[in-house]
Amino acid sequence: MRLLRLIILLAAFGGFCAGSSAQPQLRGTGDLGVVIERANGSVCIVDTTVRAILSCIDGLGDLSHASAVFSRDQRYAYVFGRDGGLTKIDLLERRIVKRVLQAGNSIGGAISDDGRLIAVSNYKPGGIKVFDAETLVQVADIPATYGAKRERSKTVGLVDAPGRRFIFTLYDAGEIWMADFSQPGAPEVTSIGRAGELPYDALITSDGRHYIAGLFGEDGLAHMDLWSNPIKINRVLDGYGKGEAKLPVYKMPHLEGWALAGGNFILPAVGRAELLALNADTFKEAGRVKVHGQPVFAIARPDGRHVWVNFAHPLNDTIQVVDVPSLQVIHEFKPGPATLHMEFTPRGHEVWISVRDADMVEIYDARTFEKRGQLKVRKPSGIFFTSRANRIGL
Amino acid sequence: MRLLRLIILLAAFGGFCAGSSAQPQLRGTGDLGVVIERANGSVCIVDTTVRAILSCIDGLGDLSHASAVFSRDQRYAYVFGRDGGLTKIDLLERRIVKRVLQAGNSIGGAISDDGRLIAVSNYKPGGIKVFDAETLVQVADIPATYGAKRERSKTVGLVDAPGRRFIFTLYDAGEIWMADFSQPGAPEVTSIGRAGELPYDALITSDGRHYIAGLFGEDGLAHMDLWSNPIKINRVLDGYGKGEAKLPVYKMPHLEGWALAGGNFILPAVGRAELLALNADTFKEAGRVKVHGQPVFAIARPDGRHVWVNFAHPLNDTIQVVDVPSLQVIHEFKPGPATLHMEFTPRGHEVWISVRDADMVEIYDARTFEKRGQLKVRKPSGIFFTSRANRIGL
Repeated sequence: MRLLRLIILLAAFGGFCAGSSAQPQLRGTGDLGVVIERANGSVCIVDTTVRAILSCIDGLGDLSHASAVFSRDQRYAYVFGRDGGLTKIDLLERRIVKRVLQAGNSIGGAISDDGRLIAVSNYKPGGIKVFDAETLVQVADIPATYGAKRERSKTVGLVDAPGRRFIFTLYDAGEIWMADFSQPGAPEVTSIGRAGELPYDALITSDGRHYIAGLFGEDGLAHMDLWSNPIKINRVLDGYGKGEAKLPVYKMPHLEGWALAGGNFILPAVGRAELLALNADTFKEAGRVKVHGQPVFAIARPDGRHVWVNFAHPLNDTIQVVDVPSLQVIHEFKPGPATLHMEFTPRGHEVWISVRDADMVEIYDARTFEKRGQLKVRKPSGIFFTSRANRIGL
Repeated sequence: MRLLRLIILLAAFGGFCAGSSAQPQLRGTGDLGVVIERANGSVCIVDTTVRAILSCIDGLGDLSHASAVFSRDQRYAYVFGRDGGLTKIDLLERRIVKRVLQAGNSIGGAISDDGRLIAVSNYKPGGIKVFDAETLVQVADIPATYGAKRERSKTVGLVDAPGRRFIFTLYDAGEIWMADFSQPGAPEVTSIGRAGELPYDALITSDGRHYIAGLFGEDGLAHMDLWSNPIKINRVLDGYGKGEAKLPVYKMPHLEGWALAGGNFILPAVGRAELLALNADTFKEAGRVKVHGQPVFAIARPDGRHVWVNFAHPLNDTIQVVDVPSLQVIHEFKPGPATLHMEFTPRGHEVWISVRDADMVEIYDARTFEKRGQLKVRKPSGIFFTSRANRIGL
């Protein structure tokens, strides 16, 4: 009897565990995400179906310029901190699985198309490091050395490309490199060529074909077509006016939120209150959109019809929505002070916006612009949903 | 001691259970999928990371032309059977949650962009029906009546469009309709216009902008640009040769596996051993690819560089791979008898292929074409991965 009671007890305990909030909950992971709390070194796990915070997790170090990618099963988030921390979070058990300090200063990362490798872009020491996604054991160290002195370059614009490859740009060296992990053993690391002066960020298109790097030291962008053979780098939008009036740059724009819509890439200009439209076939300028301030992110709604734009300080309380076919601003509103980031739900029905100085994440209908909800988050910055796991270049 | 041993034993057993089919397992759902066992009325739940079958579930009725969509949390699959059955499966608990027989004969379905509505395309009685995704309670019945006799038309090519809309085509009436559920209450149902004679299937592009319907009764396709205002339907590829020699058609191709790649849509021709390339800007013919037989599916690898093609009986043991920029067949192989369907992993590193008459699902590296594994499945047909939940039009 005693034995039986014990068995029943253990069985009941097992059953209880599955459903309580203290214990991991049996649930799908396709509608989860993380919001970075930049000031607290913490990350909040969110549910985009019920629009709720499930749990916030501390101990992630300096998250002042943090981003995240997701495992292909969408159970784990990998958070890249500013302090070189790489933290693997279990979204179901709501805890840190592992954390490594892999460099002194880093700027983001990527996950390989098979989900097995995590690459991190480092400033100090320069280069990229690559880790096993399961264990966070280091797999490769690519120092990105350049020039006669063999210095290590800061790296930026690190993305995954199809075929277990990573592409990244050397800030100091002004070059674009590729690390190919498709074969067993050491990766094949290649310098594709020169991008230009002071490349500050880059994007890869969602088909993994086009890589575009923004330049801070020159008036233009570098474009690389990965389908060309051999792969070459071309200058595009040469002299688009970044340098015209030597405008002060309040914040460097991000290219991650690039938009390919209606046959054009829509990119934030550097130092100008403009978006640039770049024809996706010819890579010539196809128009400009005057906007409220210096754009930071220009992010396409997933159907590509609209591009949502936020702005640099001191105009960073505002969002503008641009209609892509007409290149017209069709909506403007003020979510609040320090509107830092936007993330659309995967098929674009809603958008989540972090309003840092209101300590709030605001949720809007992405078509009617009606407010759908808000969540109290301490100094929120980046918002990342698990659907990124299934996209090239995110 | 004996107690301790028992506890250890139970703990071990509990651990074992977590992985067995008896107990639900705490796990992510981003790398799950279902394979239809067409002859058995069953569906197998698969894991694409470890390339394994987790469980097979019986009792889904006639699955001879079945397809599936997924809830936005990627926990539930909705399987559309031939017999009008709509079955909701819990991929974690590995069981049928609910099953309704909503018509006598049906042909597929779609899920709205907010994940709240499931629409089913019916042959008998004609029209579409729409259900609450949570409960499978009927929300709307759209009979698709046409003509003076107010007959109900069979419907085909049912897809989700952004903004809580469904688009579908009336086989008998030759019209394209839209049902808009963006407002509370009854949907707004509109006939957009005439598609042509005997539309047999349709696709919507991954941005939800272009809807293209194939015609069996005429030599051309119908194209609709949802961004145009008012929305109009245009004929494209008029006289491409479907009718030239009155070729016998062994099996109607599917348009679901359309490919937009390198600026062209790649579509299977009807009755001809050809793929048609359609310029995505001009909607004019941009070339043809001679292939092994009458194509059934022409599916782009997620990066769009290659299109994989399977064929109608009696040439259905073969797959060809077409390089998109050159429109050349670059690879051919024979997975086995009755190669019915293909599904790529979300970022395209592998492809799963159902080989019905070998009772096998074959898994290949989608770049090197090396075989990576195989799974014993009884008469497999459609393969559907949960990543579809996050895509427009899948």
